[in-house]
Amino acid sequence: MITAIGFDADDTLWHSETIFEDYHRRFQALLARYHDPKTVESALYATEMRNLDLFGYGVKSFALSSIETAIELTRGTIPADELRALIQMAKEMLAHPVELLDGAAETIAALATDYRLIVITKGDLRHQERKFQRSGLAAHVPHCDVVSEKDNATYARVLARHGIAPENFLMVGNSMRSDILPIIELGGHAVHIPYPLIWAHENVPAPADCPRFHALTSLRELPALLAPLRGPI
Amino acid sequence: MITAIGFDADDTLWHSETIFEDYHRRFQALLARYHDPKTVESALYATEMRNLDLFGYGVKSFALSSIETAIELTRGTIPADELRALIQMAKEMLAHPVELLDGAAETIAALATDYRLIVITKGDLRHQERKFQRSGLAAHVPHCDVVSEKDNATYARVLARHGIAPENFLMVGNSMRSDILPIIELGGHAVHIPYPLIWAHENVPAPADCPRFHALTSLRELPALLAPLRGPI
Repeated sequence: MITAIGFDADDTLWHSETIFEDYHRRFQALLARYHDPKTVESALYATEMRNLDLFGYGVKSFALSSIETAIELTRGTIPADELRALIQMAKEMLAHPVELLDGAAETIAALATDYRLIVITKGDLRHQERKFQRSGLAAHVPHCDVVSEKDNATYARVLARHGIAPENFLMVGNSMRSDILPIIELGGHAVHIPYPLIWAHENVPAPADCPRFHALTSLRELPALLAPLRGPI
Repeated sequence: MITAIGFDADDTLWHSETIFEDYHRRFQALLARYHDPKTVESALYATEMRNLDLFGYGVKSFALSSIETAIELTRGTIPADELRALIQMAKEMLAHPVELLDGAAETIAALATDYRLIVITKGDLRHQERKFQRSGLAAHVPHCDVVSEKDNATYARVLARHGIAPENFLMVGNSMRSDILPIIELGGHAVHIPYPLIWAHENVPAPADCPRFHALTSLRELPALLAPLRGPI
């Protein structure tokens, strides 16, 4: 019996990875006279992973890691003006308009009458809050929890704060690692809706053989999946 | 009748501005062959203010603004290796050990038996959470709310989530702008404990003539101030 639904935000409710991909392409272009795209890409990923524990997720962490990578890959010879371009690119990412995924607005509006809805997202606190406010979804979703990591302990804390038992909770998201596996382990329900692009870090296998795990291809399919699972609020 | 107490964290429970000041000095030294310290300082502050709405508070925002300022002040001629030093300095800030202010541990432990305690802090989500975990205070303080801005709306939301009426709440902090004025305006109580250093952005006048505003010089004085104001939990 499900009474509350959590939604991941980036690439579940609104587009995000497309914006990161664009940055990656421009970063590769910036460094093209020093290294091939594959070398640039793997060096950037290595820097991000090395800095993840200290920096956390989000655009500012990504920007700092990309500047560090550019300096490293050019042995300190990259002109400062090119690094300035990276800061400018990060600002463009932070200021980028929110573009909802197909069906997000209608699905959220439809579910809001029967379920408690929560957005649970990781990344830059201010950036995620701003995107939530600009998404137009806040009218139907009373809470947006920005967390620094999406692991079992974090979800347990968020659910406890909202007074929701895991067995009454369903999480919807595009990342197996961050949106699906922890919730399944806590005893909750989870719906995976893949996005065409995914950051390598989030790309892990689905949970094995679990009746509380569901896979869909679009948010539009969510109400039909939920109908037989629904309980009273 | 006060039943819950909120504590600011940076420069109220643990030292922070001393670490930023150290970065400022090193930043001035790095740019000393281009500009005098005062020019460097005012350019950095101008960049921070320009970026504040987009970047928010915290070390990563500060680091990006300092890199941008260094490039700007050298008209793009600063060697990338010197910018790498700025990233390294930011990492040192993020990894810096938590050093509690005098009396913080004892005061928190003493008040925890009679009041609901909450830490309310702004800045990098992950950095603030890590500092809270490492502070040793989590044993007495069940909640640490990291917020992206400390204004009336944010405090109202935090208090509502915890089910605390403003008139039963007292906020303790070193910043008039962020810790004192919004709470007084909401009808709550506030205690200002200045820190020897303060970021110019936070430096605004005290509220005029309000019986719910108190000024102390040390956390150690807090229990005595509270004794006549206390109500049951």
